[in-house]
Amino acid sequence: MSKVRVHNFSISIDGFGAGDVQSFENPMGHAGHRLHTWMFATRRWKAMVGEEGGSIGIDYAFAARDGDGIGAEIMGRRKFGPQTGPWTDVGAEDEWRGWWGPNPPFHTPVFVLTHYPRPSIEMEGGTTFHFIDASPEEALAAAREAAGGLDVRLGGGASSIREFVKADLVDYLHVVQSPLLLGRGVRLWDDLEGMEERFEIEAISSPSGVTHLTFARRS
Amino acid sequence: MSKVRVHNFSISIDGFGAGDVQSFENPMGHAGHRLHTWMFATRRWKAMVGEEGGSIGIDYAFAARDGDGIGAEIMGRRKFGPQTGPWTDVGAEDEWRGWWGPNPPFHTPVFVLTHYPRPSIEMEGGTTFHFIDASPEEALAAAREAAGGLDVRLGGGASSIREFVKADLVDYLHVVQSPLLLGRGVRLWDDLEGMEERFEIEAISSPSGVTHLTFARRS
Repeated sequence: MSKVRVHNFSISIDGFGAGDVQSFENPMGHAGHRLHTWMFATRRWKAMVGEEGGSIGIDYAFAARDGDGIGAEIMGRRKFGPQTGPWTDVGAEDEWRGWWGPNPPFHTPVFVLTHYPRPSIEMEGGTTFHFIDASPEEALAAAREAAGGLDVRLGGGASSIREFVKADLVDYLHVVQSPLLLGRGVRLWDDLEGMEERFEIEAISSPSGVTHLTFARRS
Repeated sequence: MSKVRVHNFSISIDGFGAGDVQSFENPMGHAGHRLHTWMFATRRWKAMVGEEGGSIGIDYAFAARDGDGIGAEIMGRRKFGPQTGPWTDVGAEDEWRGWWGPNPPFHTPVFVLTHYPRPSIEMEGGTTFHFIDASPEEALAAAREAAGGLDVRLGGGASSIREFVKADLVDYLHVVQSPLLLGRGVRLWDDLEGMEERFEIEAISSPSGVTHLTFARRS
């Protein structure tokens, strides 16, 4: 059975996966880019944005794993765009097509969770955004079918990850704790008492200052 | 100037320093002893309770630092006892004298923060409990005077540490993140946005599964 994996999900020491208020100008709210500084320094990221160099240590090792064997992604609506409520631009010339540019880094079908379904959007490079109003179980069934036997990446945000963990649908969760305190935003860990009973947990700190936490579901 | 130090303060991955509900039977609430398992395995702890052996690695190295150069402790009332409201047993034959036995492990003056002052209690081994209704600044002034030039240990719990950090009175904070999720209890990190601007933060994970976080105030 294909696995459900979360990679490189970054949080603050106080457990926020995004700041507030999230908007078009500030997709991560007042967190800005600070949760992801560790990733931008890796060779993985630099290669993706066409730059030379970058670190090749532990942060790189984790960052580079996120695409291996992935056949589809599931993401919350905020990872696609800042809009809330019904879509107002479907079919418009300047239709919103995601944060990710014309050739998004997913290269697979992507299932965007929203209460407002709309027609799919096909992008360059193999990414197609599908918009579904679905329970975690239903979304996963759709993503698994699209993944053709490969694994499904759960891309976040914090609320989506928490919902899938609560529904016991996540096999592998990689969280990166960055050395800052946001004080407010979207919490990852709320209401997950006893999660350690279902997962083997490892922690490893990096010279960059972040700590990588991995949760592997006990078989 | 003597420093204010927090050592070995243990929290869950979701940031709780104690579970709920704290009581005489369960001083740490539903957390039980689970936040402190890492410490019980160290030679430091075993020596304190009269046992042989114990680990001497990173967990020991951190655990063993907490007494060096300490001349007084400040603690929240819950670290002294489970009572709330006015004391009802002052002078009674079975008067409550703390969780810590006849010879508590502090061996210095200890200032217990409470809205209900009461006469001091002198214990064996150099520990005297003083009960004061004081702001963090006032409590620290009293503890510094009693410490005779040595440092002051801030013993917790989470609420006391948070108050002192917010008042910018803490010089060194050592937090130990244990691999479990409590889901409820007393949060350490609430309302500390931007703390990283005031502290140098390091993180180092241990083979035991915990991660040690140290916050050293920037001078």
